[in-house]
Amino acid sequence: MIANILAVGDELVSGQTVDSNSAYLARQLALLGIPTPRHETVADDLDALTAAFARAADLADVVLVTGGLGPTVDDLTRQALANALDEDLRLDEDRLREIEAFFTRHGRQMANANKTQAMVPVSAEAIPNRVGTAPGIAAELNGSRVFVMPGVPHEMREMFAHSVAPRLQGGSGVIVHRLLHTFGTGESDLGQKIGDLMKRGRNPAIGTTAKAGQVGIRIVARAETREEAERMITSDRVELEQRLGGLIIGADGDTMASVLGESLRNAGQTLAAAESCTGGLIGKEMTDVAGASDYFLGGVIAYSNEIKQKVLGVELGLLVDHGAVSEPVARAMAEGVRRRFDSDWGIGVTGIAGPGGGSEEKPVGTVYIGIAGPGGTQVHRHVFPGDREFVRARTALAALNYVRTAVDTEGP
Amino acid sequence: MIANILAVGDELVSGQTVDSNSAYLARQLALLGIPTPRHETVADDLDALTAAFARAADLADVVLVTGGLGPTVDDLTRQALANALDEDLRLDEDRLREIEAFFTRHGRQMANANKTQAMVPVSAEAIPNRVGTAPGIAAELNGSRVFVMPGVPHEMREMFAHSVAPRLQGGSGVIVHRLLHTFGTGESDLGQKIGDLMKRGRNPAIGTTAKAGQVGIRIVARAETREEAERMITSDRVELEQRLGGLIIGADGDTMASVLGESLRNAGQTLAAAESCTGGLIGKEMTDVAGASDYFLGGVIAYSNEIKQKVLGVELGLLVDHGAVSEPVARAMAEGVRRRFDSDWGIGVTGIAGPGGGSEEKPVGTVYIGIAGPGGTQVHRHVFPGDREFVRARTALAALNYVRTAVDTEGP
Repeated sequence: MIANILAVGDELVSGQTVDSNSAYLARQLALLGIPTPRHETVADDLDALTAAFARAADLADVVLVTGGLGPTVDDLTRQALANALDEDLRLDEDRLREIEAFFTRHGRQMANANKTQAMVPVSAEAIPNRVGTAPGIAAELNGSRVFVMPGVPHEMREMFAHSVAPRLQGGSGVIVHRLLHTFGTGESDLGQKIGDLMKRGRNPAIGTTAKAGQVGIRIVARAETREEAERMITSDRVELEQRLGGLIIGADGDTMASVLGESLRNAGQTLAAAESCTGGLIGKEMTDVAGASDYFLGGVIAYSNEIKQKVLGVELGLLVDHGAVSEPVARAMAEGVRRRFDSDWGIGVTGIAGPGGGSEEKPVGTVYIGIAGPGGTQVHRHVFPGDREFVRARTALAALNYVRTAVDTEGP
Repeated sequence: MIANILAVGDELVSGQTVDSNSAYLARQLALLGIPTPRHETVADDLDALTAAFARAADLADVVLVTGGLGPTVDDLTRQALANALDEDLRLDEDRLREIEAFFTRHGRQMANANKTQAMVPVSAEAIPNRVGTAPGIAAELNGSRVFVMPGVPHEMREMFAHSVAPRLQGGSGVIVHRLLHTFGTGESDLGQKIGDLMKRGRNPAIGTTAKAGQVGIRIVARAETREEAERMITSDRVELEQRLGGLIIGADGDTMASVLGESLRNAGQTLAAAESCTGGLIGKEMTDVAGASDYFLGGVIAYSNEIKQKVLGVELGLLVDHGAVSEPVARAMAEGVRRRFDSDWGIGVTGIAGPGGGSEEKPVGTVYIGIAGPGGTQVHRHVFPGDREFVRARTALAALNYVRTAVDTEGP
């Protein structure tokens, strides 16, 4: 049994809204053991939508549809499904009463337009909406089971959980996904080390995905039970960790900052950061993690030379002789913030995020990352490719990873 | 001329990654006058991908494809396009040299697997990738123009801007989108004030979109020329600004930080920030804007009480008597950072972002925002609903807006 997902709406195809419903539904389907190899997104156009219904029913056993169930003239999903079924629409009295009750409950008068929301194709079933006005639709189209849900995310999720998922049991077994985060290597290098595990058809399936500066390794296990799938994933993870050593830094919701946070917490150590080109990004990432105050003391955003001197104690001579973007200044910033905050570790970051400010010797993307710790100070130079946002993100990631490696190596 | 967008990857169809590339490309195509009524997302499966190429080429004049150009065995887009074209792959020597140079430039050895990235269908053109290793592909498939780009967002954007967009001129007429950002009002309130402009079929079309803490107003104009569309949008914008007064803070790429930055630059004034619960987010947002060093001096991330005292000069008595999350502490932080950095304006933010740390008197979401300026200091108290991420985002936005309003009111 495989599924297709169909998302409907001008705001989606025009790019005004990023569709998160489809990803949500695909994850839920996987938990029911139903793979979703294809999504489609179509405009509020009756003919295009009718064709999309037919296509999805042709390619999949289950079709989940979101959007186009509102009360206005551009909401065409009901009519398109009726066209694909070659049927008329009927008014569902039960759902109409529920819509009227919804308005009464919220102290409002039902507009006439909302009546159309209770219309469904003659052979279809109207699914109650417990948290909004748009009922869903369950139908059978050319042998496929079609479920239409509202596009408003919380209404869709509620309807999926209560009215759609229970009817989809009987995909056989479960599919469990795990995403391992690596740092410090490229996709092709990983491919060389684990390529033999990435053969199509293997179970668990293993694949890689590159994101800004990091490569993820996906493990997807199919099994009869969740426990069995988890065992298979754990076994593969052990194998991957043996092959890749310290390259795997965490899984799923872990971030570089959360992983570093755990290391610091375990070591009973603290961190402070002096940021020039990252301008607060390192602090932001560290404090995205709840409970960060246990190990992150704070930092100084030192965008100007004057602040580097006054607050961090960087000597004027260093700034004059080497420039603000230099090895000695990164070192002095890291040591300065460590001293100032009385932390175990200090980060000092200075660089040229661009788009302006580059030179031949120090092109845009040049950054110096100083890490001051109990065993002394190290400064690392990088030239990151990409735009301002990428350079800053990559710099923050690298800085946190240097501290993580040092904490794990040097220990408390 | 219409376009389809095809996104490739197991991580997309499985819902592990939300596809933002397709929305980005749809917005860019609209600017070129090319509507995109359909997107499709397919798994890393050779047959499914080959079929998707054929389908898109059948339904559209232009097909933009992202993903599946990596060096590993699950990267099948090159082969699928070759299959759809019924052609073999050839090695493009120019691109191969560029890939080798990319690795050399970054001090790494090219893996053998990366060679496959320089493969393209025989009749196709290999598009240079200026910021990564995966070349793109331009081809003609059944009369449609197909452009394949990497899935890594910044590489895709760079390639689209430099190598794809210039070849797509010549859609009939243009569609220009403008997104106006408002701050300080809700969607239904806006609906009451401008509902008469939101009628379906109007040109320009006007609609609203709610995002975390801000409501956007979309204006979409269709016209023969870009100039004409811009005139129509300007006319609507004037009307909207008259009705909504100061609620509109900027448009499109403007952010609260960039708008505040412009105000500060015009006034010849500077800003520094003392951040507790936002942990660097305010600095990060200010320095997301290139050239921010002209007006943003930096700040102090003061996550601990000790740092609030030592670096910002907040008196111990205030912390003891009122607690770290309090009106007097926000005031002292704002004044302290303004004094310390010798800036015209100082922000002091202290609050409880959650999930822990709330009390009956100061529930999670309670924040105090101090704004110290030439005319004195104001402290604002908020209780923001939502999770840690939302509370922090909302706090940063509110703080920057207070400064913006004050700068614009008090002037230099």
